[in-house]
Amino acid sequence: MSTPSYLMGLIGEGVRPSLTPPMHEREATAQQLRFVYRPIDLTELNLPATAVGDLLQAGIALGFNAFNITHPCKQLVLKYLDHVDPAAQRLGACNTVLIDDGKLIGYNTDRSGFASALALELPDADLTDVVLLGAGGAGAAVADALVGAGTKRLSIIDPQPERAQILADQVQHAQPVGSALEIQVGSPADATRWIPQATGLVNASPVGMFSHPGLPVDVDLLDAGMWVADIVYRPAVTELIAHASALGCAVMPGKAMAVGQAADTFQLVTGMVPDRQRMYAHLNELVASEDHRLRENA
Amino acid sequence: MSTPSYLMGLIGEGVRPSLTPPMHEREATAQQLRFVYRPIDLTELNLPATAVGDLLQAGIALGFNAFNITHPCKQLVLKYLDHVDPAAQRLGACNTVLIDDGKLIGYNTDRSGFASALALELPDADLTDVVLLGAGGAGAAVADALVGAGTKRLSIIDPQPERAQILADQVQHAQPVGSALEIQVGSPADATRWIPQATGLVNASPVGMFSHPGLPVDVDLLDAGMWVADIVYRPAVTELIAHASALGCAVMPGKAMAVGQAADTFQLVTGMVPDRQRMYAHLNELVASEDHRLRENA
Repeated sequence: MSTPSYLMGLIGEGVRPSLTPPMHEREATAQQLRFVYRPIDLTELNLPATAVGDLLQAGIALGFNAFNITHPCKQLVLKYLDHVDPAAQRLGACNTVLIDDGKLIGYNTDRSGFASALALELPDADLTDVVLLGAGGAGAAVADALVGAGTKRLSIIDPQPERAQILADQVQHAQPVGSALEIQVGSPADATRWIPQATGLVNASPVGMFSHPGLPVDVDLLDAGMWVADIVYRPAVTELIAHASALGCAVMPGKAMAVGQAADTFQLVTGMVPDRQRMYAHLNELVASEDHRLRENA
Repeated sequence: MSTPSYLMGLIGEGVRPSLTPPMHEREATAQQLRFVYRPIDLTELNLPATAVGDLLQAGIALGFNAFNITHPCKQLVLKYLDHVDPAAQRLGACNTVLIDDGKLIGYNTDRSGFASALALELPDADLTDVVLLGAGGAGAAVADALVGAGTKRLSIIDPQPERAQILADQVQHAQPVGSALEIQVGSPADATRWIPQATGLVNASPVGMFSHPGLPVDVDLLDAGMWVADIVYRPAVTELIAHASALGCAVMPGKAMAVGQAADTFQLVTGMVPDRQRMYAHLNELVASEDHRLRENA
């Protein structure tokens, strides 16, 4: 009798300016779906990260279809869920919760979003030997996606090598017995040895964001035969992507993962296949406008 | 940067099948507004009426713009609000709550909706001497609207005359000193004396609904010179409206108030002027489809 309608929220700290809500809403409009997506900003609400459980229950009562979950709730949200999909379980992190008949089901579209973006953007990338910068939540999703896509040697670098070790153990633990996967962990100093041998490099650290400007690695270590991916998407072109691109590397900027994540979420929530090119174009507009605003205010 | 979007809920018992959400959503689509309107059914949620306070707070956190409030929460919601508009204050009942910068502001669009419908549908009605059937919440809104529109004698009939007396006192109390308003109260037996003298009749009792079929008054008391309004809108044509119409009375069926209420709410929430004819046409479709379904299931 009425058009189906979708109601989503994004729970996390400082999420008010997130571009994820407008990306979903605009794709929904293009598909003539009724879709409202609200940022639910714990900072503004003066709520602790543990409030995510109550917010999800409130969402059930008030008719929400789904939530995206971000920092600092991706791990702790797991205990409030009724079911958790295997990838989210493996990663110990969930960024997407669907509400189905009053039950909360957790997924990880950071992982699937990076994987789908890589397959679309760098279909010919040699994934054999990859250096991963950053072993936080995003790094974990990227590591799991890389190994799932065929990486044979993964070198995880983090300023806290013990954090890199925990991630390495987690990834190794999820491998079938007899897997040939080789994982090494280290601090930024190890980049000098590992990057020159690698086929590709992914930055999953915050370095390069407006709030953490700079390069996450010495770009003299790169060569034109490598592919380079960044998950930072604001600014649209990070210093790393700019340098790698100038050098002739195949690059995947952070926007690709942002679109992959949003597109996978959109499809989970609505069951409709999003137009990834259209979402990409829209994110370009949003980021350009936002970058401009941030530079004006800088 | 993004189309403004609106998120509303309807809080009450048994509201799942309400036609109010699709009426708003469809008018919003016609105006190219992003609008999601969710029924929040206390019966389904197994929540008491007093949960309305917590649900409103949850609505603030989750980014709702507004709520409609219905049975059994219209009175008790008042104590959870930050501000109450004068008409809602006077009536002791609120059916619309706007969220403005985290504050809850109460309105009564039952009252304004009946008033606006009457002005549009029966612009030439003689409002001097009106018999009102039913002294519940809807009756109170109608009484206040009638007096505001110029009724000089109001005869309130209710099977519980003491309830009619409370309403009469409330209406009288709100009048300026020296007002010429005359109010009389009585039981259904008094209809025999009062209806033949009246210029108009309003049914604000539940009699005529699918769940309370029948006539709220002896239709032999009507004459063709009177106007007759009903606030029951399901079925679309109540027995009262059918008889009055056959007799030649000017009539206003319940749908007119339903549209008036929804249109006034829509305008409060969005600031946009709704197309009342379009909303009426849409409600006609919804009611026809619903009546058909109910008859099929009868």
